[in-house]
Amino acid sequence: MTNKDTRTPASTQNPTETSEAAEAGKSIGWHKAYVEGSRPGLRVPVRQVHLTNGQSVTLYDTSGPYTDPLVDTDVRRGLAPLRENWIVARGDTEEYAGRPVRPEDDGIKHTSPRGGLRNLDAVFPGRPRLPRRGREGKAVTQLAYARRGEITPEMEFVAIRENVSPEVVREEIAAGRAVLPANVNHPESEPMIIGKRFLVKVNANIGNSAVTSSIEEEVEKMTWATRWGADTVMDLSTGRNIHTTREWVLRNSPVPIGTVPLYQALEKVDGKAEELTWEIYKDTVIEQAEQGVDYMTVHAGVRLAYVPLTANRKTGIVSRGGSIMAAWCLAHHKESFLYEHFEELCEILAAYDVTYSLGDGLRPGSIADANDEAQFAELRTLGELNRIAKRHDVQTMIEGPGHVPMHKIKENIDLQQEICEEAPFYTLGPLTTDVAPAYDHITSGIGAAMIAWWGTAMLCYVTPKEHLGLPNRDDVKTGVITYKIAAHAADLAKGHPGAQEWDDALSDARFEFRWEDQFNLALDPDTAREFHDETLPAEPAKTAHFCSMCGPKFCSMKISQDIRREHGGSRTEIEEGMAQKSREFAEAGNRVYLPIAD
Amino acid sequence: MTNKDTRTPASTQNPTETSEAAEAGKSIGWHKAYVEGSRPGLRVPVRQVHLTNGQSVTLYDTSGPYTDPLVDTDVRRGLAPLRENWIVARGDTEEYAGRPVRPEDDGIKHTSPRGGLRNLDAVFPGRPRLPRRGREGKAVTQLAYARRGEITPEMEFVAIRENVSPEVVREEIAAGRAVLPANVNHPESEPMIIGKRFLVKVNANIGNSAVTSSIEEEVEKMTWATRWGADTVMDLSTGRNIHTTREWVLRNSPVPIGTVPLYQALEKVDGKAEELTWEIYKDTVIEQAEQGVDYMTVHAGVRLAYVPLTANRKTGIVSRGGSIMAAWCLAHHKESFLYEHFEELCEILAAYDVTYSLGDGLRPGSIADANDEAQFAELRTLGELNRIAKRHDVQTMIEGPGHVPMHKIKENIDLQQEICEEAPFYTLGPLTTDVAPAYDHITSGIGAAMIAWWGTAMLCYVTPKEHLGLPNRDDVKTGVITYKIAAHAADLAKGHPGAQEWDDALSDARFEFRWEDQFNLALDPDTAREFHDETLPAEPAKTAHFCSMCGPKFCSMKISQDIRREHGGSRTEIEEGMAQKSREFAEAGNRVYLPIAD
Repeated sequence: MTNKDTRTPASTQNPTETSEAAEAGKSIGWHKAYVEGSRPGLRVPVRQVHLTNGQSVTLYDTSGPYTDPLVDTDVRRGLAPLRENWIVARGDTEEYAGRPVRPEDDGIKHTSPRGGLRNLDAVFPGRPRLPRRGREGKAVTQLAYARRGEITPEMEFVAIRENVSPEVVREEIAAGRAVLPANVNHPESEPMIIGKRFLVKVNANIGNSAVTSSIEEEVEKMTWATRWGADTVMDLSTGRNIHTTREWVLRNSPVPIGTVPLYQALEKVDGKAEELTWEIYKDTVIEQAEQGVDYMTVHAGVRLAYVPLTANRKTGIVSRGGSIMAAWCLAHHKESFLYEHFEELCEILAAYDVTYSLGDGLRPGSIADANDEAQFAELRTLGELNRIAKRHDVQTMIEGPGHVPMHKIKENIDLQQEICEEAPFYTLGPLTTDVAPAYDHITSGIGAAMIAWWGTAMLCYVTPKEHLGLPNRDDVKTGVITYKIAAHAADLAKGHPGAQEWDDALSDARFEFRWEDQFNLALDPDTAREFHDETLPAEPAKTAHFCSMCGPKFCSMKISQDIRREHGGSRTEIEEGMAQKSREFAEAGNRVYLPIAD
Repeated sequence: MTNKDTRTPASTQNPTETSEAAEAGKSIGWHKAYVEGSRPGLRVPVRQVHLTNGQSVTLYDTSGPYTDPLVDTDVRRGLAPLRENWIVARGDTEEYAGRPVRPEDDGIKHTSPRGGLRNLDAVFPGRPRLPRRGREGKAVTQLAYARRGEITPEMEFVAIRENVSPEVVREEIAAGRAVLPANVNHPESEPMIIGKRFLVKVNANIGNSAVTSSIEEEVEKMTWATRWGADTVMDLSTGRNIHTTREWVLRNSPVPIGTVPLYQALEKVDGKAEELTWEIYKDTVIEQAEQGVDYMTVHAGVRLAYVPLTANRKTGIVSRGGSIMAAWCLAHHKESFLYEHFEELCEILAAYDVTYSLGDGLRPGSIADANDEAQFAELRTLGELNRIAKRHDVQTMIEGPGHVPMHKIKENIDLQQEICEEAPFYTLGPLTTDVAPAYDHITSGIGAAMIAWWGTAMLCYVTPKEHLGLPNRDDVKTGVITYKIAAHAADLAKGHPGAQEWDDALSDARFEFRWEDQFNLALDPDTAREFHDETLPAEPAKTAHFCSMCGPKFCSMKISQDIRREHGGSRTEIEEGMAQKSREFAEAGNRVYLPIAD
């Protein structure tokens, strides 16, 4: 078999294939394969697509063990802790008793005053574990290792995944231009690198709210989102069972998990922003760090002095975290406790290797408010906090807007890169217009593709339900696919090595009417196949040299193929034959109209 | 009632309102209104949205009389010929017997050898009409009038629609930087201007194929597409009843209609490209011009010498017209008959005021083929043809790609503007990646927004079915909405006068929790309302100061509003109050962390 090695990213090594998996895969068009690293257990998963012409294409894959029929998964047991040996072998962490889980962690302080989880069935039933943290005074972060010149197994893993050398990965992390969010308490996660030098990443948000949805739904949304390509998932739950939902999500997630601890802290004070304290917040961060959250959004840039800058805005403060902190600052007329305790927070995050995602609490919520004084004042503070975090060896990325018309997007990434010393930018959209509720995956997908081309490292997806309701399963899929398109379009525009090979493989299949290959190479094979079959359902249509759009007589690609066939067997022959005819034509004058004076 | 005059484009005049329509409209949130021009019958339709705060917003509207409950429409009768008096009054056209309609015009030459339409019911039953053309030697085009300094009623109409002065419209047309496609035989159409100085336009393609769909479906798709905002519609039918379908579409269309005459010409020679002749093509152009087609795609830039340039392409020639002409050139080893007879074609088009859309038959069909030699060789020829067309007073726009990665898009518009003397660019997408069949409305919507920002005048929509099948009703709507988003995002980025007022009105409604106003101002009110109700269906939720995403406790905008309410009644008061607090804070040192050396 010719294994034409086209992949995104292309690995320099061929994936190993158990013959069983490969043989089974050929019948359905693809199978899960692995590229082996330098040590046992370091295996990078890929999606191996088998083309009908005998070639194969290797694609990037974030779907975890769920898509490997040879792995027996069970959400009640959780995923195997693939990084555990690596973490333990470093010898710089220790297990400890950890913070006891309290009823209020699940937001049931008042309805169940005697304590205890109301629904014991919901407690995650997997193997018991003790939390782990860095030994006294140890920063156990990938940033600390990278700065010391160490290439960790995690770095090697992402190097294979991204088709770059491990040294490039180490350098980018050491310089603060990339992060590898990998809490020592989330050993189930497959390492993921986020930085402008690498493939553009996509985050999918999940999470219940006070109004609707359940634990089961959120775990299902997480595996569903990663199946379609989400590179990280944020659990933004604000309703009941917030701690327990997160535990289920973490134990079953093959990708890094992010949260906004402020949401849970606010639940613990019954939604009264003014009752928040540093102690409650800190306790919540430790609770989540012990569970294994890989990165946390911290709105420490919303300073008291900036709140008045939002007074004349059209839509005020639209970040939940931002508005909570603004309310707290005003209620107490004090500086933000997050800003004041930022160094202490760094020490906590360093002990677990939790990555900062410095939140943009003052991001614009409308076209009218884009790039205003409040937004950029906060950005300058995020630059200051980024430098502090790096002093503590804490990995850091910076969150970005929001709602920004196209002509104001570039200023955002340029300023962020300058102020934050090229720390990874993690943007929500941006939405390029406000007039299309129900289509904000598209209004924002446009802005996302552009800002990613210009340097954003990770895109936070937006679903069709944005501004209207909670996304369901279909919305999650639509959001992820839209953002994978934006990310891949940016990878192409940035000239990421290997990115275009995927497009080329699909274009070849299209020109050669290999319909099944087009489907299997598509970002969403199911929908591509379904749309094709809607008009031309019969099986022979899958091998037809035309489609329903133009019918057999009008198919441009068929005519184009016929031209090649009739005028020479190969591209070289046709070119020579046509060049000859072309020369004859040129000799005969070559033009009909006389040149027109300009 | 405060009639806050926010519209896109904003007219300087308030629309007149029959009290009946306005009163009826208030109950459903909007009604169809008209802005009166300088002469009787010159009434520019708008969508007047009535907000719950007593204000109203006037939006651009292409939906035609169908959305006016006071107009009695009947597709069997056709629309009223609103431009007829203007055309007749100019006195430069004449009615004539016209070309007899033949059975082969409907593609039924062989199955019905004795002539006559097979399905007589399909013949359009509206008022009999004779075709009209310019009197001997008269170019009856808007370009000719503009160059003579005349401001036609059509120009005044679009000036009101676009909120610019009629003189600006005349200048842009006279300079060839804008076109106003308005065949004298399509008096039913509402004038539409296409040029970079104006709102970005969106074209929707309809048309049956040899494989599927009917006349009724196509007429329905046309009215459906304009209801959602299509500014022009191209009928690309290639199947049965091609002439009759077009007649129904034209007589019922409130927007300009475009076609590709080559498709019908090819039907007349049974799909055998080599049997095409200039005579058959010319006859088809006259047939369609007599029916009233407003603009025609002509692939005259596909020259024999360029065909070999496509030999090493990944996807060859993907334009139907381009591949047909390439096949003809190669079969005869002769220069294209379209190129050779271009001046004669100009004379025909000038007599009806049919606008050229010079087709890009060699546009790239894959990321790999973008911006290649074949594509740009043809573009240079289109520049040459544009100058010839203008010599004949024929309005001209230039078609553009195709499949282009983001970093290669700007070169396309810049070159086109330079080579074609700023003639309106009319682009298909471009698609920014090939890996997402079933989502090519999104892969291309990204490129469309960018190229429109940079100067493209009209965008040809792409539906989710692109590359897979024929679009159904839902696909047409999704394609139009996606492209209206791209177009409006570009209008915003270009700073089009009044464009942002629409966003601002919706943002205000969002911040003030006026849910009904958000729905009525949305590009797609139905889907916005449906998505909201999916999570929070109860009627009280329409006035709730929160939504299902965050629930009542977490709503950032509610908190933001609370801050304003608690800390001062008005924006000015809160700003002053907070500025005072802010000053106090500043005086006390204003920062927690000492400045960090860079």
